Amino acid sequence: MTTELSLVADIGGTNTRLALSAAGVVLHDTVRRFQNEGRQLNDILDEYLAECCPDTKPHSACFALAGPISGDTGRMTNLAWTIHAPEIATRTSANRCILINDLQAQGYALPALAPDQLTPVLSAERDIRAPRLVVGLGTGYNAAFVLPIESGVLVPAAEAGHASLPAHTADGRKVVDWLLANLGQAQVEDALSGTGFAHIHAALHGEKATPPALLARCEDGEAKALKTLEVAIELLGGVVGDLALIFLPRGGIYLTGGFGQALTPWLRQPHLQTVFHDAFAAKGKISAIMQDFALSVIGDDFAALEGCALRVAQN
Amino acid sequence: MTTELSLVADIGGTNTRLALSAAGVVLHDTVRRFQNEGRQLNDILDEYLAECCPDTKPHSACFALAGPISGDTGRMTNLAWTIHAPEIATRTSANRCILINDLQAQGYALPALAPDQLTPVLSAERDIRAPRLVVGLGTGYNAAFVLPIESGVLVPAAEAGHASLPAHTADGRKVVDWLLANLGQAQVEDALSGTGFAHIHAALHGEKATPPALLARCEDGEAKALKTLEVAIELLGGVVGDLALIFLPRGGIYLTGGFGQALTPWLRQPHLQTVFHDAFAAKGKISAIMQDFALSVIGDDFAALEGCALRVAQN
Repeated sequence: MTTELSLVADIGGTNTRLALSAAGVVLHDTVRRFQNEGRQLNDILDEYLAECCPDTKPHSACFALAGPISGDTGRMTNLAWTIHAPEIATRTSANRCILINDLQAQGYALPALAPDQLTPVLSAERDIRAPRLVVGLGTGYNAAFVLPIESGVLVPAAEAGHASLPAHTADGRKVVDWLLANLGQAQVEDALSGTGFAHIHAALHGEKATPPALLARCEDGEAKALKTLEVAIELLGGVVGDLALIFLPRGGIYLTGGFGQALTPWLRQPHLQTVFHDAFAAKGKISAIMQDFALSVIGDDFAALEGCALRVAQN
Repeated sequence: MTTELSLVADIGGTNTRLALSAAGVVLHDTVRRFQNEGRQLNDILDEYLAECCPDTKPHSACFALAGPISGDTGRMTNLAWTIHAPEIATRTSANRCILINDLQAQGYALPALAPDQLTPVLSAERDIRAPRLVVGLGTGYNAAFVLPIESGVLVPAAEAGHASLPAHTADGRKVVDWLLANLGQAQVEDALSGTGFAHIHAALHGEKATPPALLARCEDGEAKALKTLEVAIELLGGVVGDLALIFLPRGGIYLTGGFGQALTPWLRQPHLQTVFHDAFAAKGKISAIMQDFALSVIGDDFAALEGCALRVAQN
């Protein structure tokens, strides 16, 4: 028996990671990382295949990318690349290529996550037959709904970061007002993302600062930056709570993305954990069901590749 | 060949409708309506079966109810009935009984809707392989995501009416402020439902009025009531637009429910159609994709029964 190999990829704004997978599992010694700058995807594919597949051809391919997919074409949000599935199939000699959004890939990866890749924030019994929800906070914001079906899981595409940011507290309103005045809109990802963190700081304190600088100031215990962090976590709790009502993810909620990972230690700090929980659970007469949802942060940088491996093995 | 009969039900706060179905289709001459007041569900079942099933027993059952389901138990939101699936199976001699929420039933019914049961509000090409979205405006508010799968469609449960109401306009903020001051919360269904319509009027004009009275005043062209209607339609457009980004329902969006149906002529009136469309589509840099979503109002009062018939035939 020969195991069919698949080519899987995680194409971000800065780097592309490629690997081979077999039977839904990434072959970890085949993972390679390439810088995108100054290159085209085809050059990266040629180089990878020459190194890792000199003698065999991948049977199929699944590529995750940071941008929207329409039909068999994907467009990178922060890179001037347009990616065509048939072109990848031709270039790699694969029989077919599936394109998915990077957050969909995170959703497909959930069944493969080991417990040590998860940091718990809210505890609850997880129903493994129930839907799950992945919320990605990075350069942008998005959500992926993960539905169990007979052949595995189904993860529909979404553009949840562009929904309106609800804010019913005085601080939240300051943020919305600043966004409306400065960006002409107040979408979820304008506040809940790396860039959004800087927007919240500007809204509250009238001061420009980069997200890494703000996080460093939080580490130093600086009051203004800590206030920004608290408002970000309160807004995040409210928005994720709304998604929990829309999706009822009794199988668990998973935060991911670079900014989500940067928030992890703060989300476990008692005061901020309470701020997050209270904003998440404040849903009036239906607040009791908010105790049904477990929430963890995914710490695995290879989750998107794992998700592609599982997606391509599913059918 | 004998066709197996199923018993289907649509249990609302005031009435229960029962019917028989075969191969996913409601047998229209078996539809009966019963008032709930002063009776128990078992009495209604006994009466129905004695009249419509004197000689045969239903093979299976699917009951839709206006309230949340947990496991095999459903609780009516506006009626002191708790409904147990195994008890219904025993009482009706069915092999099994499936309980679904009434809005899930509307979702399962979509494939059975005839074009003349739909009133178009926003036009777009519908992709029949893509997800669809049902939004119900009645006593409460909820949404149902309708996903095509191999065996038919999958419609997960939701409690979308309890999410926070976003409002970025001056009028919208007045509504949120009134809700926060008077109800202690500002959830979507506190504004977007029959009762919510009265709340919006109170917020804008400081005046109590029932939803039917307000709609009659709109018919008479009374300015204050028309302003209330315009703000309701603007808030509805924004909230449904947010759901469109979260679900990407390129198969279409469907409004349903008594209040949704009452809004139909107004949503087709040119000025208010523009108000609705503009609020729906105002999503900043991603506004272009908002043209991909068709939106219609479902006018079929039997859609929940049809949905139960299709759900029980699916597996």
